[in-house]
Amino acid sequence: MTERRGLFLNFEGMDGCGKTTQARMAAERLRKEGYEVLESVEPGGTPIGQQVRRILLDPANEELAPRAELLLYFACRAQNVEQWVKPALDRGAVVVTDRFTDSTMAYQGYGRGLGREIVITLDRIACQGVAPDLTIIVDIDLETSLARARARNRTVADNHETRMDEQAAEFYRRVRAGYQEMVQLEPHRFAVVDGRGDIDTVARGVWQAIQGKLPRHD
Amino acid sequence: MTERRGLFLNFEGMDGCGKTTQARMAAERLRKEGYEVLESVEPGGTPIGQQVRRILLDPANEELAPRAELLLYFACRAQNVEQWVKPALDRGAVVVTDRFTDSTMAYQGYGRGLGREIVITLDRIACQGVAPDLTIIVDIDLETSLARARARNRTVADNHETRMDEQAAEFYRRVRAGYQEMVQLEPHRFAVVDGRGDIDTVARGVWQAIQGKLPRHD
Repeated sequence: MTERRGLFLNFEGMDGCGKTTQARMAAERLRKEGYEVLESVEPGGTPIGQQVRRILLDPANEELAPRAELLLYFACRAQNVEQWVKPALDRGAVVVTDRFTDSTMAYQGYGRGLGREIVITLDRIACQGVAPDLTIIVDIDLETSLARARARNRTVADNHETRMDEQAAEFYRRVRAGYQEMVQLEPHRFAVVDGRGDIDTVARGVWQAIQGKLPRHD
Repeated sequence: MTERRGLFLNFEGMDGCGKTTQARMAAERLRKEGYEVLESVEPGGTPIGQQVRRILLDPANEELAPRAELLLYFACRAQNVEQWVKPALDRGAVVVTDRFTDSTMAYQGYGRGLGREIVITLDRIACQGVAPDLTIIVDIDLETSLARARARNRTVADNHETRMDEQAAEFYRRVRAGYQEMVQLEPHRFAVVDGRGDIDTVARGVWQAIQGKLPRHD
């Protein structure tokens, strides 16, 4: 690559929107085009992040306080930035994350009503200026999200990752409205891709959004 | 009790200073005097806090980034405040903690060099104004702290709680200087008790410091 610094792409959207599949497909294509790609998922990512993830997603932890939850997400992220994301960007790689601070803004800031300010403050502390160059929102309507999340919970009912999916529809309504407001506030940093088509159609939309941002490489 | 709100006492000091013993003895005496007492230890406390504690103190997690560590401590604390400390204070109990934000200030703010501002900001987010009415620092010199910590590590070498104790003497020097500066900045909120005497002598010093702060009860 001719650029010194890499590119940071973040995939976002409601549960069940297909962003995990799309992030993987984008990473695959980027590798084929010759880029070094680091893939990471939040919460989780690093080994320490995975330990934090288990606390966040264990349905037995139903008494988890909203601010404790918020701080755990950012602990995970601080570790991810320090250990993986920043070194990868510094050596010019493309970083592809499945959720990042935009999720915390949508789910905790808007969804749980903790507000934008607290999320922005914690992002500054945890990420020290490392932020996505482009966030791709794979957009589906509320009903599709709930239906897909329910179907997934039936399939993987035993995987202890259902705490978030059990939240009420009202919560998801606030999350989706949150994403919409975030796009309005920073339109240059977001690309909204319609997530209701088949996987390859959505992937074409994603690739279109990414292409303009890619550093040229020799 | 005639007071509506309880009393928040925090025990601090270098590793090996004896604060855990002193906190227990103070809690015991307070109970004998008729107060409802809630005892809590940080990191840890609540069941969720204990899960976070395991991440913080596992020596296998040596790649834990300073800011991730900081956020984990505050996640623990946010849960403790919400679930235990605030409800106890609201019903007029005496809360006795073995470490709280003062530890994070001394160890992470001063010791790891993250600075005061970041700790103050996170305290505001995690604790929402809940702070100790009195922090008792059980003070020992650096050499005694290191010697006691080493002795303890030999005894409990297998308990996975040695990560912090393995830090270098230079780190402990900064921590101790940090405590000293904290006392200078907020002298009314701290009581420094000489921790080098025998347990009962130290306990008398602690009780003297507590007495003036106790709400009268009928």
